[in-house]
Amino acid sequence: MMNTQLTFPLMIQHTEKFFPKKQIISRTQKRTQTLTYDEYVRRTRSLASVLDRLGVEKGDRVGTIAWNHHRHLEAYFAIPSIGAILHTINLRLSREHLIHIINHAEDKVLLIDVDLLPLIEGIKDEIKTVEAFIVMTDDEELPYSGLAPLYSYEELLANGDESFSFREDLSEDDPAGLCYTSATTGKPKGVLYSHRGLYLHSIALALADTAGLSEQDVTMPVVPMFHANAWGIPFAATWLGSTQVLPGPAPTPQILAELIEEHKVTITAGVPTIWLGLLKELESGKYNLNSLRAVLCGGSAAPKGMIRTFEETHGIPFIHAYGMTETSPIVTAANLKSYQGDLPYEEKLELRSTQGRVVPGLEIKVINDQGEAKADGKDMGELLVRGPWIADSYYKDERSKDVFVDGWLHTGDVVTIDEEGYVKIVDRTKDLIKSGGEWISSVDLENALMAHPSVFEAAVVSVPHPKWQERPVACVVLKDADKGRVTKDDLLEFLEPQFAKWWLPDEVIFMEEIPKTSVGKFLKMALREQVRKELAL
Amino acid sequence: MMNTQLTFPLMIQHTEKFFPKKQIISRTQKRTQTLTYDEYVRRTRSLASVLDRLGVEKGDRVGTIAWNHHRHLEAYFAIPSIGAILHTINLRLSREHLIHIINHAEDKVLLIDVDLLPLIEGIKDEIKTVEAFIVMTDDEELPYSGLAPLYSYEELLANGDESFSFREDLSEDDPAGLCYTSATTGKPKGVLYSHRGLYLHSIALALADTAGLSEQDVTMPVVPMFHANAWGIPFAATWLGSTQVLPGPAPTPQILAELIEEHKVTITAGVPTIWLGLLKELESGKYNLNSLRAVLCGGSAAPKGMIRTFEETHGIPFIHAYGMTETSPIVTAANLKSYQGDLPYEEKLELRSTQGRVVPGLEIKVINDQGEAKADGKDMGELLVRGPWIADSYYKDERSKDVFVDGWLHTGDVVTIDEEGYVKIVDRTKDLIKSGGEWISSVDLENALMAHPSVFEAAVVSVPHPKWQERPVACVVLKDADKGRVTKDDLLEFLEPQFAKWWLPDEVIFMEEIPKTSVGKFLKMALREQVRKELAL
Repeated sequence: MMNTQLTFPLMIQHTEKFFPKKQIISRTQKRTQTLTYDEYVRRTRSLASVLDRLGVEKGDRVGTIAWNHHRHLEAYFAIPSIGAILHTINLRLSREHLIHIINHAEDKVLLIDVDLLPLIEGIKDEIKTVEAFIVMTDDEELPYSGLAPLYSYEELLANGDESFSFREDLSEDDPAGLCYTSATTGKPKGVLYSHRGLYLHSIALALADTAGLSEQDVTMPVVPMFHANAWGIPFAATWLGSTQVLPGPAPTPQILAELIEEHKVTITAGVPTIWLGLLKELESGKYNLNSLRAVLCGGSAAPKGMIRTFEETHGIPFIHAYGMTETSPIVTAANLKSYQGDLPYEEKLELRSTQGRVVPGLEIKVINDQGEAKADGKDMGELLVRGPWIADSYYKDERSKDVFVDGWLHTGDVVTIDEEGYVKIVDRTKDLIKSGGEWISSVDLENALMAHPSVFEAAVVSVPHPKWQERPVACVVLKDADKGRVTKDDLLEFLEPQFAKWWLPDEVIFMEEIPKTSVGKFLKMALREQVRKELAL
Repeated sequence: MMNTQLTFPLMIQHTEKFFPKKQIISRTQKRTQTLTYDEYVRRTRSLASVLDRLGVEKGDRVGTIAWNHHRHLEAYFAIPSIGAILHTINLRLSREHLIHIINHAEDKVLLIDVDLLPLIEGIKDEIKTVEAFIVMTDDEELPYSGLAPLYSYEELLANGDESFSFREDLSEDDPAGLCYTSATTGKPKGVLYSHRGLYLHSIALALADTAGLSEQDVTMPVVPMFHANAWGIPFAATWLGSTQVLPGPAPTPQILAELIEEHKVTITAGVPTIWLGLLKELESGKYNLNSLRAVLCGGSAAPKGMIRTFEETHGIPFIHAYGMTETSPIVTAANLKSYQGDLPYEEKLELRSTQGRVVPGLEIKVINDQGEAKADGKDMGELLVRGPWIADSYYKDERSKDVFVDGWLHTGDVVTIDEEGYVKIVDRTKDLIKSGGEWISSVDLENALMAHPSVFEAAVVSVPHPKWQERPVACVVLKDADKGRVTKDDLLEFLEPQFAKWWLPDEVIFMEEIPKTSVGKFLKMALREQVRKELAL
């Protein structure tokens, strides 16, 4: 067989040749605009030429700090197609983490949404490697900024080369993307994606047994493009020629409902928090969303009641899926097998609210002290994954060896697997808190709290939350001398400069003692029970 | 990303783990039997152990001479999963070609259907490398045979190891399959398939924009498993856990219709000749085939009238596709784009009766003397293809250099491509008729003739002409009811409004049957001979 390398230029050139008339609907700061793929690819080639002129070379990292819109999508293909690495930066990171990852990635160029400029201006003296800042905006004039050299994206593109050639010498094993993910302790860890991995992941999304993406679809990823590449949907949709709707900066449930209705979106994707918001919006009864064939939901577990409401009240099919930044991300999707179609709805819902079955192409294993867990839906173990779109290490990071062992990714998720292969998450080995689809590290908060002069010890656990799924609550034992003298507000004020606002605990419960295991580790399960009781949750 | 090799063991182990209850319905010499995938994989592992014991090593060729049934499907996965090469042998080859390809492939073991034993017995003294003959039969006793050593497939399996391990050290670039294809002149040429190629081809078949194969499907390849791996359908169907119906030895239209109805087949695949036969059978009105979501048709061009009859008369959707042994085989499929859905039926039919659009993952180019042909649906040129499931040479064959040039496969098919990317075969480079220096497309004339209500099938060939060099002659098989009632003049009158006058055939010869290749394609060379004799040219 021919030695064809599975790379980004192959994907976008397919689109260029066969889907020039198809459209991208992009909501930006000022408007909602429509581009054809013909325009899109010409702009993408132009961006590639611009980056080339700015000195971006093969293997260089180019960072993006941006919402979901067409310019970000241009970067998605232009950067890997010249052999550089698309580093999508989570705009919700703390100042400290932003500085860390930009320096750790050694980004050479940053593409920044105009409304997000302050994030970077605030850290400009700390980031060492960036040689050019490019502002993505609908306005003709750039705002005043201390960043230098500062360029206008549109001005650069206007002077770019719309017929610039993508690289033809790329290997499928060359890196194409980089995304950092929060760690239980310490700084975020980088995941490097290869051309081959993202290519194969795109096909996986297109399998009928997964999400069945195709040219017939109108896709709208609500999951941010800075978060595991919006689950890879923009890559697959562009390649296959789907119509794409990109919902832009901080879309509200109303904006999402309007976009779905107006553009007849067939498949949308995001975390449960998004869908809770949309359900509330739908109560108004003023939308017709019957174009939707699937709401793809992952990031954290979707409550069964939510799936039921989508399907029974609104007639909108729901696909529950599971993955992580390290897995590109799709690992499992909760589709039924053909012979399960006749089960009663409640049984189907039960299966469909699990994390689902592993996608063809990947292997999984559930491991506990006794070896491989029984596939009986009860025996618990840690979920291990391997396959061609699974990371094999963290980017230049010593912590790799704890997670990637003997060729398997240890997900840190405790699951059961039933005899039909449906995986269900029961708990997390580590105690991360997942709020609105984003990770909060309990350990980081605990360490910060324990650095307070009046705190004897502190543990942070998650409590269920109707909107954000989980929120952190701090359990604090004060030093004897300070008991009764330090308040919740004192501690939150102490944490505030160190964390993003949404990381701060919703509650602080003062205790006499934190329950511990025999070896002195916090007994988090017992503590969670206690806290939930105390807060009447 | 992990360095996961895309190999056969990964595919079948997915099935083993996640689809043990799904079924394979297999028609063999004596009965139609049902196996679960659980049984199937255990038998496949057993076969692997048997081959291993017989001394089959990595890289060895194991030949199969067999119809479409479960034992052949076991060979399909057992042979590549121990690193050997599955050599599917076309049972319709001439004695001379059979001898040639078995010797050229240096097959070490042959798996033979009991009813096909005579084919091999007749050449046993000429084949040099075969060390074991294994007979696939439902009977307990083997027939008398001069082949030695001769084994019973079922007896070997009964003593095999159902938990035998497949190889874990395979590279995706290792060869997995071998299939010979007829050459215009000389001996058949071998095409070697890699694990990677067949893995990626399987996913290509599963894309919604191609054939959309999935676990939900009940597949029935009528195209033989000795012909380009039944278009790769058994690989994809097994991997994805589709229910499979394998129609066994020499299935008649009646058998096909009954299997589709009884087992609720959703997708079937074969050459136009098969579907002409099925259409005739359906005239009885006694079948309900509404489970079919697609009849996949390739191998040679399907007449537009046939597509129309399937869809309008029987409500059975038709997918016209194109490929060849050298391309695994899928290259194009004639699905509509989303925005073409509202076109009038005739326009849609026009597009859907082309060879279609290139499948994601492949690249095509149409080349003529002026360079790349214009994408205007008129400019003709030879179709070139490249991609990860396209052969890069013939197996140990000097003729490779004529077909594989500068990284492209030269298909030998003359096509047009329109602005939407739809490829239409105008002719084989060697089947074009050159009349007075102008090209006449035999395929266009054939399609037009077959649209006549009284015509069952028609082929057009060139005959030498003193003035015009070549002229077209039509060979026509009339439907039984119209035999003797339709004349040459009737047919020419029917063609007249559709073609330039000089395109019209000089002669129409009515025949009982048109000679075909083993895979149902018109045998143009033989036909040309016959016609020239008949016309005393």
